[in-house]
Amino acid sequence: MGGSMLNIGIVGGTGYTGVELLRLLSQHPEVNIQAITSRKEAGMGVAELFPSLRGHVSLKFCDPAEARLDKCDLVFFATPNGIAMQQARSLLNAGVRVIDLAADFRIKDIAIWEKWYGMPHACPDLVSEAVYGLPEINRDQIRSARLIANPGCYPTAVQLGFLPLIETGAADLDHLIADAKSGVSGAGRNAAVHSLFAETADNFKAYGVPGHRHLPEISQGLSQVAARPVGLTFVPHLTPMIRGIHATLYARLVADVDLQALYEKRYANEPFVDVLPPGAHPETRSVRGSNLCRIAVHRPQGGDTAVILSVTDNLVKGAAGQAVQNMNLMFGLPETLANSHAPLLP
Amino acid sequence: MGGSMLNIGIVGGTGYTGVELLRLLSQHPEVNIQAITSRKEAGMGVAELFPSLRGHVSLKFCDPAEARLDKCDLVFFATPNGIAMQQARSLLNAGVRVIDLAADFRIKDIAIWEKWYGMPHACPDLVSEAVYGLPEINRDQIRSARLIANPGCYPTAVQLGFLPLIETGAADLDHLIADAKSGVSGAGRNAAVHSLFAETADNFKAYGVPGHRHLPEISQGLSQVAARPVGLTFVPHLTPMIRGIHATLYARLVADVDLQALYEKRYANEPFVDVLPPGAHPETRSVRGSNLCRIAVHRPQGGDTAVILSVTDNLVKGAAGQAVQNMNLMFGLPETLANSHAPLLP
Amino acid sequence: MGGSMLNIGIVGGTGYTGVELLRLLSQHPEVNIQAITSRKEAGMGVAELFPSLRGHVSLKFCDPAEARLDKCDLVFFATPNGIAMQQARSLLNAGVRVIDLAADFRIKDIAIWEKWYGMPHACPDLVSEAVYGLPEINRDQIRSARLIANPGCYPTAVQLGFLPLIETGAADLDHLIADAKSGVSGAGRNAAVHSLFAETADNFKAYGVPGHRHLPEISQGLSQVAARPVGLTFVPHLTPMIRGIHATLYARLVADVDLQALYEKRYANEPFVDVLPPGAHPETRSVRGSNLCRIAVHRPQGGDTAVILSVTDNLVKGAAGQAVQNMNLMFGLPETLANSHAPLLP
Amino acid sequence: MGGSMLNIGIVGGTGYTGVELLRLLSQHPEVNIQAITSRKEAGMGVAELFPSLRGHVSLKFCDPAEARLDKCDLVFFATPNGIAMQQARSLLNAGVRVIDLAADFRIKDIAIWEKWYGMPHACPDLVSEAVYGLPEINRDQIRSARLIANPGCYPTAVQLGFLPLIETGAADLDHLIADAKSGVSGAGRNAAVHSLFAETADNFKAYGVPGHRHLPEISQGLSQVAARPVGLTFVPHLTPMIRGIHATLYARLVADVDLQALYEKRYANEPFVDVLPPGAHPETRSVRGSNLCRIAVHRPQGGDTAVILSVTDNLVKGAAGQAVQNMNLMFGLPETLANSHAPLLP
Repeated sequence: MGGSMLNIGIVGGTGYTGVELLRLLSQHPEVNIQAITSRKEAGMGVAELFPSLRGHVSLKFCDPAEARLDKCDLVFFATPNGIAMQQARSLLNAGVRVIDLAADFRIKDIAIWEKWYGMPHACPDLVSEAVYGLPEINRDQIRSARLIANPGCYPTAVQLGFLPLIETGAADLDHLIADAKSGVSGAGRNAAVHSLFAETADNFKAYGVPGHRHLPEISQGLSQVAARPVGLTFVPHLTPMIRGIHATLYARLVADVDLQALYEKRYANEPFVDVLPPGAHPETRSVRGSNLCRIAVHRPQGGDTAVILSVTDNLVKGAAGQAVQNMNLMFGLPETLANSHAPLLP
Repeated sequence: MGGSMLNIGIVGGTGYTGVELLRLLSQHPEVNIQAITSRKEAGMGVAELFPSLRGHVSLKFCDPAEARLDKCDLVFFATPNGIAMQQARSLLNAGVRVIDLAADFRIKDIAIWEKWYGMPHACPDLVSEAVYGLPEINRDQIRSARLIANPGCYPTAVQLGFLPLIETGAADLDHLIADAKSGVSGAGRNAAVHSLFAETADNFKAYGVPGHRHLPEISQGLSQVAARPVGLTFVPHLTPMIRGIHATLYARLVADVDLQALYEKRYANEPFVDVLPPGAHPETRSVRGSNLCRIAVHRPQGGDTAVILSVTDNLVKGAAGQAVQNMNLMFGLPETLANSHAPLLP
Repeated sequence: MGGSMLNIGIVGGTGYTGVELLRLLSQHPEVNIQAITSRKEAGMGVAELFPSLRGHVSLKFCDPAEARLDKCDLVFFATPNGIAMQQARSLLNAGVRVIDLAADFRIKDIAIWEKWYGMPHACPDLVSEAVYGLPEINRDQIRSARLIANPGCYPTAVQLGFLPLIETGAADLDHLIADAKSGVSGAGRNAAVHSLFAETADNFKAYGVPGHRHLPEISQGLSQVAARPVGLTFVPHLTPMIRGIHATLYARLVADVDLQALYEKRYANEPFVDVLPPGAHPETRSVRGSNLCRIAVHRPQGGDTAVILSVTDNLVKGAAGQAVQNMNLMFGLPETLANSHAPLLP
Repeated sequence: MGGSMLNIGIVGGTGYTGVELLRLLSQHPEVNIQAITSRKEAGMGVAELFPSLRGHVSLKFCDPAEARLDKCDLVFFATPNGIAMQQARSLLNAGVRVIDLAADFRIKDIAIWEKWYGMPHACPDLVSEAVYGLPEINRDQIRSARLIANPGCYPTAVQLGFLPLIETGAADLDHLIADAKSGVSGAGRNAAVHSLFAETADNFKAYGVPGHRHLPEISQGLSQVAARPVGLTFVPHLTPMIRGIHATLYARLVADVDLQALYEKRYANEPFVDVLPPGAHPETRSVRGSNLCRIAVHRPQGGDTAVILSVTDNLVKGAAGQAVQNMNLMFGLPETLANSHAPLLP
């Protein structure tokens, strides 16, 4: 492969975010995956673990000690929370840029991070430096960032849905409601009873109503945009599908606003945000496998409650696809490169 | 079968409400199903259409003309909207009591009914007489009713969830929000592209955000309890499961209230409403196949937004099971008779 | 509860077989569940683990040491393989009868058992005594048995499907083929990546083609009936549903036989085996939640290959329901007691 | 778009085969979709019907009269059976090449076709000319064909699975068994009760055991390869997934053969057939959205029964992807062009 290609390393990558990242990168014309590391699976072929990648990825998982990640242009962390913060500094010092798909660098307030993630943070100074990788808000900072905190899946769908309303101050910022539904892949590829097929199929439930880790992440993002604290009720639900997030957002309007025009204008130049025509109801499958966020806006019965519907694929725009979008921005590549294939429907 | 048993007729019954009604009635010790009518399927054995009932129901569908429904004690209408209103009067005149599982008698305001259901109403006077069959509100009137309007599936879950808050005036009645999710059986057993497996599986979407027929039904019920009009935003969603409704309800609290105590007290004597312990998240499968409504109450981050979670099986407490509960009440039988089996999990 | 009721103990019971056994026993009019033991969950309410049982089972899991199982009339083992064989002898010695829902007593040849289950057997002499609990073959021995080996899920569906053909010698016994498909609950309620929703939904695969533990169990059963060894190819598959087994059986006919008449006659008096009319295709949902096995027989294009379709609910006739059927037989109760409810469809 | 690109027309295209064909062609660098016709949907934007294609396909469905299909290089028929045979001749006469994704030209024996498809054939002479579009058998004829009969979904998976065994004569050709399982999208995007979510989810069933239209197609293909009639028992099943076919094939070996070596050699140069390592079990999701057929071969217990596992995506290699593969061959393009993306897993 050519010397001008990006040399990429992946730490972790045995989960769903990992396989999706590999799917996208293996089809990226400017990327060479130099190494993917996993202590547990070292020596196993990637395509043995994920047979969908047979013929597309010939790498084996390797031991971190052998990966020479310091020779990479960019390293992705597709690891559990708490790993990237241990390893980011030495990579950055070696001139390697880093995108963390986990949560280590998402929350600026270290005390809040430590409360929700239940561990001391290893490098608070890097949290300050890290850029929150939501291009629709931080595109310019992303381009020059050394360290990207790739957003969570719920936070991406919810923030993109609320953003125009918050920016214009048209909503009661003290009583925002985000009723969000996720497919089961959002719980990861870990052996856990609550993610079993026989526990989750033909079933629907809310979870984490008293508090969920994505609440402070969303609140931080919306509060930054609003330049004041917002009040948010966030209720995540588990729905029996593999991929997809559907956020149903409720806001009390405090100003007269043409929602459709507002959203169309705000996202007119965004390649991955698609505002649907009036009256539409986006389906999660309409973005399956793609980096798109589709949004529809409603004002039922002409009242003062706005209802925003926002859908993404949690593994793409909610994780690996957004990471590739960030990578493209960081290295001056076309933003949509290797990320613009059509969704898979049905 | 004995002369003291109830002679029951069923009109329609080729849909999911019908097969569920047959399942419950076939196991009811005080019921004799005299006839089930279907013009389209006349002559076909019920168990040919629904093989699950082989060995439990030996009836054939018969032509309405031959059914002698006027000899029944009670006739259930498990028909599309607009049928029961054509046939109820003659049955009532013959001394037969009627439970309509469709929507013909649910809305008291005829103009509103005609707007949402798109047809003129055939018997407005009977609408006045009809009792809305939600026993948790109208138990006494149900006992003596000749004509029952069996509630819709969403309205049952939403009203039971909001009821204690409305009764006590603890919520801002102008800005109630019901974010409801239904399994696909709620769309009925009609050939329709939007209910196909390949359209609904691995997918999630809202629908009817501008307006849904169950909105006026819920608004009517809550307004009656509040003794004033309420403002409600109702957003139904389709989720890839067969049975189940999950209503996530949001209300702004305007009084200090112990939600847990309030709900436990309100439903202490209700055989089919189960208030879960603090912190719980009811799953739809925990009521699958049963007449239960399970409810949990939350107040996230101690704020002023109450979050109520309410789950039912749309075909049981949301349709056939509630109809049997009403039947038991109407005929002085134990309210839970033939309706108290355990849910099927997993 | 009355002194004449059966006192029942359950060892284990935190898995799907356990919750199903509890569902059935909690509705059995002649049973008192005295204790359910689980070291791991001791002290937890059964209905906390399985909310579907709230209001039906008020027991807590207790430590085995406190359960006084020796005072029971009957103890069910709903445990992993290898547990019952450690505890059965002392219970039997105390006069307690035992039904093992795991595999410890199913295989008469100890060497074969030890090969497939990977451990030494603790009590080969009890294996000799144990009765294989398939009532359609061993009804009389079950009545008087002290120790029942409750059959596996695949073996029940496959043996009932092949039985009439084998008994009459109408098939080539050296080349039987059983292509079987199971819902995911058959893999149990254990945290395992291969049973996750995101691994099994929208997917279909065979597994264990080189060899599966149910192969020797089925071979043993068919060989006993044939009074000679049979040759069987058994291919299990995982299908994205919760419950259900569908066995598609292929046999070369070596005698002219009226398959429909043969099967109808063989099962005419079996309360839980339902032979469908000619041309039928049984669906797994037509037995969901019930103890039924429904069978259809075909001879495509009038050739010499018989195709038998046999469906069961793996948790009922394939596990807990059959155990209750065996219990009823052992204690002289009506065989179908508390086991004759209608299946849940849809 | 450039004059050197292929001008493509699509007749039909409102079904699942159509949307998949549009997904693939919209990403094909050498294709210009000139028109897509639908009498019923004329005037509707393709992306209105299939929102997944927003941003990828800007065409509207048009009336056939306006489509000027005679100006195309190639026309695909993604129509119900019986349409292509009415329109193919005039297109061929105009110099347009044709690929029919329906069944009109698949069966060479007109009497057999008319029996299974229940209508008289409109152009038997074109059936003789048509080339059966399975490149692994007919690659050279496809290159020069004017008219392609694109194979059915089951026939593709079954024939590719059996092919090496038949070619070498290693199997008993009188007793082949194909136990095949299909996702529900195989039934099409037609409003039909039997394809509803609530009818097919959490359920498994066989269908068409007495006879299925794909039986004569498979038999014809295998018989041509064998140069003698073969005896085949074909049992299709419906499994609750959207996409995917899993064929489990059984053959009695009549010669000693190294199955693994045989299959690897036969398919060594086939870009879309992947023979898995010994002991593997291909999953349908490992080919989801891709044009691959993955195959594993087994010989359980070293006996004389070969078990072949063959999986495809019914909408890709079983329909639209194979059609694109044929198109590439017909026009001298790289065979895998626009068809080599990685499968979507999970």
